[in-house]
Amino acid sequence: MATIKAAILGFGTVGQGIYHILNEKREELKNKLGLELEVAKILVTDTSRERVPGTQHLMTDNMAEILEEDGLQVVFEAIVNEEPAYTYLKQAIENKCHVITANKVMFAKHGLKLQALAKEYGVFVGYEATTAGGVPVIKTMKNILLVNDVSRIQGILNGTSNYILTKMRAEGWAFEDALKEAQRLGYAEADPYNDVSGQDAFKKIMILSALAFGEQPDWDDVEVIGIDRISAEQVKLATEKGMRYRHVAEVEKREDGTIFAKVGPMLVDAEHPLYPVDDVNNAVALETNYIGTLSLVGPGAGMYPTASVMVEDYAEIIGKRAGFVVRI
Amino acid sequence: MATIKAAILGFGTVGQGIYHILNEKREELKNKLGLELEVAKILVTDTSRERVPGTQHLMTDNMAEILEEDGLQVVFEAIVNEEPAYTYLKQAIENKCHVITANKVMFAKHGLKLQALAKEYGVFVGYEATTAGGVPVIKTMKNILLVNDVSRIQGILNGTSNYILTKMRAEGWAFEDALKEAQRLGYAEADPYNDVSGQDAFKKIMILSALAFGEQPDWDDVEVIGIDRISAEQVKLATEKGMRYRHVAEVEKREDGTIFAKVGPMLVDAEHPLYPVDDVNNAVALETNYIGTLSLVGPGAGMYPTASVMVEDYAEIIGKRAGFVVRI
Repeated sequence: MATIKAAILGFGTVGQGIYHILNEKREELKNKLGLELEVAKILVTDTSRERVPGTQHLMTDNMAEILEEDGLQVVFEAIVNEEPAYTYLKQAIENKCHVITANKVMFAKHGLKLQALAKEYGVFVGYEATTAGGVPVIKTMKNILLVNDVSRIQGILNGTSNYILTKMRAEGWAFEDALKEAQRLGYAEADPYNDVSGQDAFKKIMILSALAFGEQPDWDDVEVIGIDRISAEQVKLATEKGMRYRHVAEVEKREDGTIFAKVGPMLVDAEHPLYPVDDVNNAVALETNYIGTLSLVGPGAGMYPTASVMVEDYAEIIGKRAGFVVRI
Repeated sequence: MATIKAAILGFGTVGQGIYHILNEKREELKNKLGLELEVAKILVTDTSRERVPGTQHLMTDNMAEILEEDGLQVVFEAIVNEEPAYTYLKQAIENKCHVITANKVMFAKHGLKLQALAKEYGVFVGYEATTAGGVPVIKTMKNILLVNDVSRIQGILNGTSNYILTKMRAEGWAFEDALKEAQRLGYAEADPYNDVSGQDAFKKIMILSALAFGEQPDWDDVEVIGIDRISAEQVKLATEKGMRYRHVAEVEKREDGTIFAKVGPMLVDAEHPLYPVDDVNNAVALETNYIGTLSLVGPGAGMYPTASVMVEDYAEIIGKRAGFVVRI
């Protein structure tokens, strides 16, 4: 059976998740796709630390070595910041590799450019994992957009914020205590700024804007408010009125063609679809012309949800070669 | 530009919806798919009645005439009962046509057989429209199943029942009055038996069972209870306790490998994800191993949601020929 060679860039939580899933599902993926996938290289900054037993010989801290790997076809990227991720993915695409990324900071800014480059080189860019974790909003929207227009997108896109708001309400905790617990559970980074300031949700709604409308609003025009100024007292008051705080990102294309986005806390009552969306769950509602409003809810964070949708991206890319011949 | 010829079997609400969308989206589909789609034939039982202006010359009451149409490649089927739909789709597949169906009664019973036949003849079967209307549960689950196992599916799968339960609660109507209004709005058939008895939801959960587990439980072993025995008094009592009736279909694969399904009314509180799912909306929750629980909510009925997902099926089938070459 033919083998496809892949590299993983970044071997933290998500990178390791990909590796584990590819191992656990090796036989099944082989049977379903008719191809074997081999992780040939793993890019890390410190090659001396073996994170997963048996991977030491795959590790390198040199991207050039990965690009030179003979027959490399797929690059999974799970690095955190804009650079060097963007440069690496450009290089991978120019080497005719399909790339699959979980990097929302990089993709919010450079996604449209990377996709244009990929088209030029005849490869695919998978980016389901950049937005809403395990919730397949990118694939769903791509499919809907084949026939429908999407006019508005609204969602809870940051699992950490939603977890904190949930605990403040359900446990009566102060913001700081809920944040500490989120950090202890690995939901929030040591520096929680991106999550609680709304910047993380902002990046994700920009990715969805690019997909739905082919463009983004000017970033400076978007009001972004986090959850860090919501007090335990405010949450208590809302609960007494039967309301819940949700942190909501939204973007819409208005009738005059302009794109409007905002990110911030919102009070919802029990009739609102976002009312029962607790803990680290994410939710996305898509307003469309034919289908009406379609909502998706699922885990917005975690090693396996994120890694799983990246492996699905891979399977989807491989599936595109399925021997369909149009009889024309 | 090359043209693909299609036929529509059945020209009621859904059949006409397909025709309208294909016309409205003609240019866009052409640009996105690089192929033009032409509706070459429409199968009806009464050819004397022109339902949509300009379609008279396309109508026939003879399936043989459709199968003989030169270069026919896609058959959209929107007929209601098991036969002759099953026979027609078998014939279409044997003629190497891709088939796209909205017929849940037929597909619940014959879906696995049709898919096996299609595989043999190298064509695709699209059946997104059989289940949950505009909610893309089939595509989402197919994609998830590439990497995940689905262990349990739970959902509101009959929009008419959900509409009736919503009106009984929100307006205080009796079952009969809510049913009459549903019929007036075109949600319920003149004979509402399939909807309110739970039989419609049962067929849909059987379709999802076949997809998730490759098999169905013995139909006789499944308890199916409708909403027709729920009184206005019961609904009022539930509301006073902060609960809502939902009509829920579920199927799960148990640890011993057996498949268990049931269909019936359920009381849910405000914490339950199905609590805010009102009116004709459908909802499906999929329990998976890597992603966790993923839920989808959207319109479960209507001309455009159903027709729209059928055209998406078509676009997806065409998209599979996308020029992806594996470099091995």
